[in-house]
Parts: sequence; structure tokens; C-alpha cells
Amino acid sequence: MTDAPKTPLLDTVQRPADLKRFSDAQLRQIADEVRAETVSAVSVTGGHLGAGLGVVELTIALHAVFDTPRDKLIWDVGHQCYPHKILTERRDRIRTLRMKDGLSGFTKRSESPYDPFGAAHSSTSISAALGFAVARDLGGTPPEGTGDAIAVIGDGSMSAGMAYEAMNNAGHLGKRLIVILNDNEMSIAPPVGAMSSYLSRLYAQNPFHDLKAAAKGAVSMLPEPFREGAKRAKEMLKGMAVGGTLFEELGFSYLGPIDGHDMDQLLPVLRTVKARATGPILIHVLTKKGKGYAPAETARDKGHATAKFDVVTGAQKKSPSNAPSYTSVFAQHLIKEAQADDKVCAVTAAMPDGTGLNLFAERYPSRCFDVGIAEQHGVTFSAALAAGGMKPFCAIYSTFLQRGYDQVVHDVAIQRLPVRFAIDRAGLVGADGATHAGAFDVAYLANLPGFVVMAAADEAELAHMVATAAAHDSGPIAFRFPRGEGTGVEMPDRGTPLEIGKGRIIREGKGVAILSFGTRLSEVEKAAENLSAKGITPTVADARFAKPLDRDLILDLVESHDALITIEEGAVGGFGSHVAQLLAEEGVFDRGLKYRSMVLPDTFIDQANPADMYAVAGMNAEQIEAKVLSVLGVASLGEARA
Amino acid sequence: MTDAPKTPLLDTVQRPADLKRFSDAQLRQIADEVRAETVSAVSVTGGHLGAGLGVVELTIALHAVFDTPRDKLIWDVGHQCYPHKILTERRDRIRTLRMKDGLSGFTKRSESPYDPFGAAHSSTSISAALGFAVARDLGGTPPEGTGDAIAVIGDGSMSAGMAYEAMNNAGHLGKRLIVILNDNEMSIAPPVGAMSSYLSRLYAQNPFHDLKAAAKGAVSMLPEPFREGAKRAKEMLKGMAVGGTLFEELGFSYLGPIDGHDMDQLLPVLRTVKARATGPILIHVLTKKGKGYAPAETARDKGHATAKFDVVTGAQKKSPSNAPSYTSVFAQHLIKEAQADDKVCAVTAAMPDGTGLNLFAERYPSRCFDVGIAEQHGVTFSAALAAGGMKPFCAIYSTFLQRGYDQVVHDVAIQRLPVRFAIDRAGLVGADGATHAGAFDVAYLANLPGFVVMAAADEAELAHMVATAAAHDSGPIAFRFPRGEGTGVEMPDRGTPLEIGKGRIIREGKGVAILSFGTRLSEVEKAAENLSAKGITPTVADARFAKPLDRDLILDLVESHDALITIEEGAVGGFGSHVAQLLAEEGVFDRGLKYRSMVLPDTFIDQANPADMYAVAGMNAEQIEAKVLSVLGVASLGEARA
Repeated sequence: MTDAPKTPLLDTVQRPADLKRFSDAQLRQIADEVRAETVSAVSVTGGHLGAGLGVVELTIALHAVFDTPRDKLIWDVGHQCYPHKILTERRDRIRTLRMKDGLSGFTKRSESPYDPFGAAHSSTSISAALGFAVARDLGGTPPEGTGDAIAVIGDGSMSAGMAYEAMNNAGHLGKRLIVILNDNEMSIAPPVGAMSSYLSRLYAQNPFHDLKAAAKGAVSMLPEPFREGAKRAKEMLKGMAVGGTLFEELGFSYLGPIDGHDMDQLLPVLRTVKARATGPILIHVLTKKGKGYAPAETARDKGHATAKFDVVTGAQKKSPSNAPSYTSVFAQHLIKEAQADDKVCAVTAAMPDGTGLNLFAERYPSRCFDVGIAEQHGVTFSAALAAGGMKPFCAIYSTFLQRGYDQVVHDVAIQRLPVRFAIDRAGLVGADGATHAGAFDVAYLANLPGFVVMAAADEAELAHMVATAAAHDSGPIAFRFPRGEGTGVEMPDRGTPLEIGKGRIIREGKGVAILSFGTRLSEVEKAAENLSAKGITPTVADARFAKPLDRDLILDLVESHDALITIEEGAVGGFGSHVAQLLAEEGVFDRGLKYRSMVLPDTFIDQANPADMYAVAGMNAEQIEAKVLSVLGVASLGEARA
Repeated sequence: MTDAPKTPLLDTVQRPADLKRFSDAQLRQIADEVRAETVSAVSVTGGHLGAGLGVVELTIALHAVFDTPRDKLIWDVGHQCYPHKILTERRDRIRTLRMKDGLSGFTKRSESPYDPFGAAHSSTSISAALGFAVARDLGGTPPEGTGDAIAVIGDGSMSAGMAYEAMNNAGHLGKRLIVILNDNEMSIAPPVGAMSSYLSRLYAQNPFHDLKAAAKGAVSMLPEPFREGAKRAKEMLKGMAVGGTLFEELGFSYLGPIDGHDMDQLLPVLRTVKARATGPILIHVLTKKGKGYAPAETARDKGHATAKFDVVTGAQKKSPSNAPSYTSVFAQHLIKEAQADDKVCAVTAAMPDGTGLNLFAERYPSRCFDVGIAEQHGVTFSAALAAGGMKPFCAIYSTFLQRGYDQVVHDVAIQRLPVRFAIDRAGLVGADGATHAGAFDVAYLANLPGFVVMAAADEAELAHMVATAAAHDSGPIAFRFPRGEGTGVEMPDRGTPLEIGKGRIIREGKGVAILSFGTRLSEVEKAAENLSAKGITPTVADARFAKPLDRDLILDLVESHDALITIEEGAVGGFGSHVAQLLAEEGVFDRGLKYRSMVLPDTFIDQANPADMYAVAGMNAEQIEAKVLSVLGVASLGEARA
């Protein structure tokens, strides 16, 4: 733990409105204090550091100029919202970021009126700001009212089609709307795509000092805002811009680029825009991710996400691990498949590090494609790679694959194209909370005709599933695996393709059978161990496949046991529902079967460590044990022993 | 039925390669013949007429210049592919379009090697073309090989973020790729959005004759293609363009606009591009939807979709209907809610006519928003309208809502915002086939915490559900209803809000209970009627809600009956799966229950009329009757009678 920094001015700020009584010079000092407080807080909690440090000045300038929460300030993704939280009545809890019962690591409506529209996935902010602006003009009356609507969106987020859809609509409607493009040439990974190159060209021709002068000139006119009317204001704003025609063609005024760490640019420009803007305007702000904290500025990922760390040295405090992460096992075994077959290639949607494909890209740069934050395109691009004779692995987190769902149905499943979906972050994910939970993929994939859907029970199984997917060339196949480390099992040198639709018995028992799909298996085994010490000996099986189901295995289990319990790290509608459908159609329920399906509960579960989250979900070893006892009609362990 | 037109030249074309032996003048005659054949075919089958007529010359020019199926020609959406089908070995079946066992109304991989990537949903073609181009360069070897990759995409489809994502990626990769922007200022509805205005400005400054001259000059250089190398070619192509900087900023060469009905422009330009293009190029082609057939040209929707018609008069042959369409009932009752509450507003994603919101827009233009083909933005925009104090109805077909699934989860469900989803085209939809089936929405919505999910059993129920949704302001709510006409029930003047989570008994019986969710109810009632004539008297209930379930109703039914059968117009994972989960948790299966869940089968069902499709699905009255008998262990109707 580090001493909290000295923050004399910040200590007097109770709410954003308090910023209005400070001089511009004092606001610069407050920026320094907020930066120190942010570094100090994240050193204690871990979390997203670089993005917040990059927008300290911008955050203060926005709150000093606009009137939140009446003005709706919407941070895209929300990685960068820690300084905003410090300023908006949450400083007292800032050292609980991303912890159980603490502040969310993202913006969250239920947490504060200063978060009018929560986020965590990218590129939603322009749509949200436009909705507020339109609702305001229609007479909508949310609790705090609505003044201006301001979206702050990163350059990486601009690669998503959703941002373009929103700009296309906003440019058409022509309502006053403020979009701040926070351009740090760095989302999570270095940005890719033509838009990114375009932005680089824009600031390559940027005369910062000219813009600064223009902005100061503009603000000096503020006392007579109505003298020459809207047309003059528009011309003036235009004079402050260099380039930006792409945004102008989409109906936005373009202003910038400006230095996002220079209050002398930020404050006058924002004041001018507040006083004069009529239609939609895009303000192009250049910032540095990690700004002002050397260990973040010099890190490859600019301090994007960090464990707890020492403020002085920047050294991160990571707990040692005995097992490889699922992500790295996926990547290493994909490389092995690519060694053996030059048709194997890989697609990521702006998450090369998170998916492990950075390792693949180092080895096979020409076979690895980062398409940007563009899951829709990424899925269909993968489908066409398959149609063109390749073997694409489309690596997208469970929660982000929701972005490409129609493409999974329409372009992959209906056409039966052999796209391999590597679905990381399946199940509950920990500190990123409900927005990042991988809860729905089994349900939304397993009912697609022709799909094969697998879940790895441990990291060796994952290796086999990578091999299975590589070998399966007759249609789409998906395999899911969780965030975090494996169980430490012995690893094969290379995976062996599994027989499609066949599960495996882990432990032979009697009375009750537990059929697990995914990594709950280790908890199931613990439960079985505990139970057997008490005279109850469940059979434990690993289904491996939610589709096609291992019909023989399941019917054998129900034939030879009184009770069957399924368990999966997903919501109802998935694996257990497919098992129930089979049992119903086979008439198994006609003659009675103690059947239960353990699924994620019908709530969004807030952040905590995954083990705590699974406890909330009722899916840890103890709870599985209790479920077995209740199914068997044994009220308590005492009764079982007796 | 009309006489087939005289088509002497077309009759000699067996495959696209045959077009290469004709002179440009003869190709113009073939265009006339293909146009006549298209009109004749659609007069017999009904279907999408206007889009195909608009691209007759373009289709012929593309096939005459490029080498399909080695060159991959990808038609976006596929509405416009009938002339393409006539030219690609399917003319003999062109009068079976959209019929059972006939040709698909869209492109379809399984139908022909000339359809390298099928479609039906919009804006996928650039992603697909890029995938083929990349696979080619990686050594992928599909059966016909891969030469060029060519996407033909409409101006309406360019409003979708997916198209932007693909261009952003293509501009970055820089591979040779040909995108033809088929700009008819008309997708299904008049296009909206800033991109559309931008395209209008481009062709407002268009000197057609200059372009034509430049193109002719370019083609005259063809014999010496390598003389001055790629740089000169690029300059030459650039000289043919006016404007187009937006596409150029995204890394594409821009060429056009050219007259898409003038072979003297199309052929030289395409030949030049084929000979000279290096990186990605966008060719801007202006066409008229419905071109060359007066009744289509003058129709408001330019002959977008038509019933069978008389070729001479253009008069459509529609069968008379006794009941209003579900779509019109939705629209009329939404207008009633909007009359009563000025916070009610509506959002469509480029389908004002299809969703009925054109009627709403006439009455309340300021409260109706067509966001373009932009479901992702449309959903989040609706979420923010709700956060801003409005009561938005987001009207999107079941199959297209898949495009906005992540936004439903992330922006609506997690934030518990009261967006009302009006889900038209639920279940099987008829001639549009598998790509338009609304099969998955119940599964992908009902497992979202806090969602209310309803299905209307008839058009009066739909009216009540519109009122229920308007009144439900505490969280998200969805109601689904099918394509087509209602059952002719008496209609309330205005709907009455239903009690959330309560179903209703339709018919009291004994032994077996059938619990229906949606419009299968009428078939269930028919089955019950037939069965009761044979001494079996099922109880029939309408669940109304898949979420929250009517727990009391369901537990009462299983208490008082030996068998329970659920039925829904959706895939496994939806309503029936939620019922099974409840029954399992309640221990109902422990003591035995004849439980069955009738859902759509695990196949994509090809086009036919909906009744035929439901017969394939095993879900009509006879099949429900058979299911009851089999559940009761009665092998045949004879046995039941005995």
C-alpha cells in the first residue's frame, strides 16, 4: 500500500459543479492531483490505468465547462472513467474499483446519476448520446433533465460499424450533439484499419498552435454570442479545423485536432462549442494513453490493464500461478495446428493480446487478421475465408460474439461453413463483472442447425478441442473456455481430435449422475469426493459436447441412475435444455427421473473474483453437494451420514 | 399466365462464358431479352422485381467481362439476383422462384457454384469478397478456384455498420478487391442517413459524358496494359472519378458515378478495372430500380416486392383476405397508444413499410425514427430514448434483431431500460425461406434477466400486448407475432394491458394439457377439436408469456393432468426449455410426467408457404394430434376410438 497523494485542491471538490469556481490555472493543478489519485487508487486495486490517465485533463475540462448530470456525459467503453468517478461523488470508494461490492470498473447507471448510460462494450456512446438528444427534444424528462449530450469515444472504437451507423443517423437528423474523438492511436491493441490511417493523416497536418490561437480568438467572442448568428459560428468553428472532410461528409462539423493535455486548448474549445454549436460536431482530441505516469507511458500496452503495483517502481504484484492460462493454451495449440496445416488461419476483432493471437501473429503474421473492433465483419470475413478454402479460427470472447450473432446464423450456420469459433471468457469472468460475462453463447449457438458446440473441462481438453476444430471441416464448430488459469493437468504435446458428439465418464458411481459441460467439472469432482466420504458415490461425466449431444451416454446414465444433474457455466436455454429436450422426447420423464439442471441464475452478477461469483450463482462444490443431497431427498449432511 | 417473351439471343446463352462471344451491341439486345424474361418470370411467381430490373445491364456486363464462377461475384442481399440466375444455368427453373422446391429468391451456395456466398440479410458482401480475396492469396483452393472478388452492394446497404467495418478492413489490407456501389437512391424504403445525402451530392456534380469519354479513352489503351505501369493506371482511374473522397479516405480508389444502364459506360469501365486495378476500388454505378418496366418504375416502392401480376397492365393478383395482417394491427394499436401518451415513439431499421411504422410515421412523423439498416445503433438509440424518458417501440423483425443482439443484452437488459421490442416475422415466414425465419428470438431473449417476453396467439392478443408493452415501464419487454394475416377474431377498440406473467385457459379438459406460446394456438385448438370427437379432451392453455412464466398455471396443469405438451414457433432453448427448467426445479419430473416440447426442428427449412413449412416442422393440427396420441400411448386414432 502506498501513501495517498497530497491533493489540497481536489479535496475541496465535492461534485463536478465545484470545478466552476476554479481558475484555469487551478484546474491544471487539479488535473495533476486527479492523476496522482488515479495512480494511487489503481496501485491498490489493479484495473484499467492507461486510459484514465490519458483523459485526466479532458475529464476535468468537460466537467468544468458542462453541467453534469443534467448534461449527459457518456464515456465509450468506460475503461477511462476512473478520473470521472473521482470527480463525481465516488472518490471515497475509488479504492474499491472492480472489487466485490465496490465500484464498477466501467460506468454504470445504477451506480450514479453521473453515469447516464453505462458501458463496457465499445462504440455505443454516439448512439446513446443521440438518443438522449432526441428524447430531450421530444419532451422526455429523465430525473435530472437533459441538457447537452456528449459522447467521448476512442479512435479504436471508431472502427466498429455501430459508431458509423450512429454518425450516419446523427448527421441525418442534424441535432446538436457533441462527439469527442479521443485519439490516442491506441485502443487496447494498436488500432488497425483505414480509419486509423485517416486519423493519422489528419494530425500529421496539424498545426496545434494555429488551432490554439483560433480557439482563444473564438472564446474571446463569447460575450456577444448572438451577434452574428449561427452561420458565423459555424464558419468560425470550421476555421478551427484542418481536414476532417470524412466526418463533414457524414454531416458533422469537425474541429481539431487539439492537444488533449493542454487545458489552454481544451477549455476554450469546449466553451466555444458549448456556446455556439448547432448541429452535430466532432472534436478531435489527441491524448496519450498512460500520460503522466512513466511506467504506463513506456509499457507496450500503455498501462491498459494492470495488477496491483508499486507506485514508485511501477512493478506489478502478481500472484504466482501453477498452471498455464486457457488463453495461452489455446494460442500455443493453434500454432501447432498451423504448423501442420498451412490452411489454418486466425481472426481477432481488436483483441490480439486478450485472445492470445498475438503469439500466433508473431509466428504466422500473414495468416493472422486483426479486423478491428468489428465482430460483424470478422465473423463474415471468417465465413468467406472458409468458403475460399481456408480453415479460419475466429477468436472472439463469448460476450463480444453477441455482436456478430446474425453473421453466425446467416453467413456461417445457414451456409454450413467450417468456421472454428474459439470462445474465450466463457462463464463468469471476475472483475469485469456482468457486462463481460459469457453467459449466453451455449444457448444462442447450440440451437443452430449443423453447429458443433464444445466446452473444455480443463486445459488438456482445450488442446484436444483445438485439434478437433482444426480437423472438423464439414461445418461450423465452436469451443468455449474460461478466463484464467487451468487446473494444472498434464498437457499433451499436441491435441488429439475428439470423436464428435462423444462425452466421457470421469468417475463411476451409482444413484446419482452429474453430467458436467465445461470447467465446473473440477468443482463437481470435489463435490463427488466429499459425498463419497459420506457414502454417496455419484457418477461424474464430462459431456464435452452440447451439440451434438452424446445420446447414448445420457440415456445410459438415466437408465442406470435415479437422478441426473447437469451443470454448465451458462444461462438456461443451453446444454441442460438440450438434455431435457432429449429426455422428454425419449419419454424418460414419463416414468420419473430426478432431473435437475444447474445453470447461471436469472440475474446479472456483479464483479467479484470468479469463485465468489460462482458462489453467488450457486455453482461451487459445496452447492453442488447440497444439490445432490436435496435431489436424493436427504435434507442435510447429517441425515446422509445417519 | 403470360406468353414467354421472344428471346432469340438469350436462348443461345447456356452459361455466362457464352456472353464473351457477343458484340457490345448484341449484349445490349441480350439485356432487353433478360429484362423481358425477368418480368415474365416474376409475373408468374411473384417476388422481388424492381431490384433485378435495375441491374440487368450491370449483371450482363459483369458476366461478360469477368470469369464466373472462378471470379467470385457476390450480390448483397440478393433481391436483385434474378437476372443473374437467368444467366447462370438456372433459366429453366426461373419460374419456380420462391416456391416450394424451387429456386431461392436469394443467392444460395447450395444452389449453384455461381453463388459463391449466399445472402438475404444486407451488407455482408464486402466482408465476403474480402474473405475470398485473402483466402486466394493464402493459397485457399475452393472447387472453382478464386480469381477476382466482386461485391455488388446497394446504397441502402451502405448504411449498415458492417459494410463500413469491411471497407475499413479492406482499405487497410490494400488487396485488389472490387466493390460496385449500386446506387438507386432506393433500398426497400427511400434511404436515410448522411451517407445517402453524401452519395446524392456525388452524383449531383456528375458529368456523365466526361466519364464516358474517359472510360472509352481508358479502354483504348488496353492493348498495352503494362506500358506505363500501375501508377499510370491509378492516375487514369482517378481521372475518371469526380469526388468520392470519403471512400478514398478509407483506402479505396473511387470511380464514377457511371450510368448503370449504359453498356457503353459499363463495359469499358469494367474492362479497365479488370485490366488495371491494384488495390481496393469502388465503382459507383447509378441505376433505376424497376428500370424498363413502367408499372415498376412508377410504383412507390419501384416494384420492390410484388404478387403475381399481369405483364401488360402490371395489375397484381392478390388473394382476398378476411382478416387484418398482424403488421397492420401492430401499427394501428401503436398509434392508439401514441394518441394516449405523447412519450410513445417508434424506431425502425429501414423497414417502415414492412413493420407498419409507415402508418405511424404519417400520423406522428416527429416520433418515428428510421435509422437506416442499422440494427445495432437502432437498439442502443432506443435504449437511450428510454433512459431519456421516452417510451420507445423498437420494431425489428425477429431475424434482423439478431443484428442487434449484443445491444439488447448490454444496453437494454443489463441497464433494465424499458425498450419495447415489437418482433414481427416470428416463426416461419414463407417464400423468404430459412434466412428470414424468426426461429431464435425466444431463446436468445428469454434467458436475459429482467426481460418480459410475450407471443401473441391471435391479432386481438397482439392489440393487448401492444397496450401491455406501452404500460410496462420498469424494464425491457418484447412481443412477437408472425408474418401474414390474423385469424379473424373480434378486435378490441384498444388493447387492455395484460397482467405480466399470467397465461389463460382456453379450453378445459383432462388427461393431457397443451400449453401454447404464440399463434400455433389455432392449430392446437383444431387438434383438440378433432381429438374430442374421438373421446380425448385436452386442456388447452395460452401461455402468453415465456418470461416470466405463469408458474401457478403450469404447476396447476401438471398437478391435474398426466401429460403436458408445450408448443412454440421457435427453436429449442426457448419457451419449452424454460418450462422444463421450472418443472425440473420443482421436482415434477421426479414423480413422472409425460412431458413433451414441440419446437422447430433442428434444420433450416427451405421456402414454401408457411403452412407447408410448419408441416415440415411437424407442427400442424394433425401432427399435434399425433403427438397427443403418442404421448398418451395410443398408437393410432383407431386405438383411441376403441
